[in-house]
Amino acid sequence: MTSTLILLRHGNSTWNQKNLFTGWVDVRLSEQGVAEARRAGELLVESGLKPTMSYTSLLSRAIQTANITLEVADRMWLPVKRSWRLNERHYGELQGKDKAQTLAEYGPEQFQIWRRSFDTPPPPLADDAEYSQANDERYTGLGDDLPRTESLKLVIERMLPYWESDIQKDLAAGHQVLVTAHGNSLRALVKHLDDISDTDIAELNIPTGIPLVYELDDDFRPVKPAEYLDPDAAAAGAAAVAAQGQKK
Amino acid sequence: MTSTLILLRHGNSTWNQKNLFTGWVDVRLSEQGVAEARRAGELLVESGLKPTMSYTSLLSRAIQTANITLEVADRMWLPVKRSWRLNERHYGELQGKDKAQTLAEYGPEQFQIWRRSFDTPPPPLADDAEYSQANDERYTGLGDDLPRTESLKLVIERMLPYWESDIQKDLAAGHQVLVTAHGNSLRALVKHLDDISDTDIAELNIPTGIPLVYELDDDFRPVKPAEYLDPDAAAAGAAAVAAQGQKK
Repeated sequence: MTSTLILLRHGNSTWNQKNLFTGWVDVRLSEQGVAEARRAGELLVESGLKPTMSYTSLLSRAIQTANITLEVADRMWLPVKRSWRLNERHYGELQGKDKAQTLAEYGPEQFQIWRRSFDTPPPPLADDAEYSQANDERYTGLGDDLPRTESLKLVIERMLPYWESDIQKDLAAGHQVLVTAHGNSLRALVKHLDDISDTDIAELNIPTGIPLVYELDDDFRPVKPAEYLDPDAAAAGAAAVAAQGQKK
Repeated sequence: MTSTLILLRHGNSTWNQKNLFTGWVDVRLSEQGVAEARRAGELLVESGLKPTMSYTSLLSRAIQTANITLEVADRMWLPVKRSWRLNERHYGELQGKDKAQTLAEYGPEQFQIWRRSFDTPPPPLADDAEYSQANDERYTGLGDDLPRTESLKLVIERMLPYWESDIQKDLAAGHQVLVTAHGNSLRALVKHLDDISDTDIAELNIPTGIPLVYELDDDFRPVKPAEYLDPDAAAAGAAAVAAQGQKK
């Protein structure tokens, strides 16, 4: 028996528009991001997919996306599970910084290391910094697990245990699972599912607002390549993500 | 130690505007209902209350209300639990019928019995009727528990077990609980909490969109009378609910 997993990256946020590193800073969707979430709901309806379980991170832009997508798909009643383990990569000291300024200040090599190195995190964010989450009540229970910066490798290390403990369990129980999350938490999951090397993952960009559908076997391995519900828009979207930081 | 329970009745729906009996029919909020939900979020912020757990029914108008209220209150990340046991009273054969027409056709006495009798449900709704939920996938697991009509007494009988098994447990664990639901599922809970008689409950009307706050002791009994966050608006809203069906 196979199961269906649908991954959805939240759409454009107010800080994407300002070209700022966001990470765990809890910004909202922009108008464009709201429209992308609506489009994701329409794509679900057109595809005939009917998720029965909704997972989100603890960040508002992913939750807004899931809310809107499920409202359009007329499936607001789905059970919901949320976890910090699906959050975006913590961007450390870069959180709140302008991407173009950072590129100009540190040069393209350092910039690309911070954005795409597998295991080199940016410098850690101080707990008393403006964009720290050290005092955010939603993370009170985390204790030492609360990240101050993360590489993709660290994201994988905190995301995979949740994939195994919770999401796999719902898939095994017959649920069609929708996971609405972020560029890097979803890259972490895709890296695992598609067995992508630490080097090749740097080139993988996930477009916003377009559901990515996996059919998984009993061992939670893909039985065929995953498919975006709108492949043309997905290719264009992935190219736009790859070009980020280059814009003025 | 006391705990805090916040009850919120969803705002105006598209069928409220059309003056139709709704029950389990899954209609959406009207523009006015969306505005009421936003106001509820503002009232939470002004009051300083910070719910940490969100309960809803399985009906979209309650879920929309909770989503909007928590978006305004900047608490979208709350854990969510949903249950059919918090749904509106099933209105049986009246679902989808015009309230004024029903009043004219059956007379004020029968009309008032169906609306406010404690234990006389309307005639049951046939499973092949237009507004039946017999084939709604969200209720697939219910089996014989799926109602075809309900009195307030029957609502109490299916709501109270959930209050005890789930909501009380979260209150005991220290959660401040927000329950976003419906006129009759909330009347059922208020009847229990305030120990209102089967007769007197007929006169109790809960206004839409105004959080009602209980402080409960270890036995989940109120330590003082519950308070609406906007008492003046609540009084006006309750009067408007009482007058329903009279409008042309």
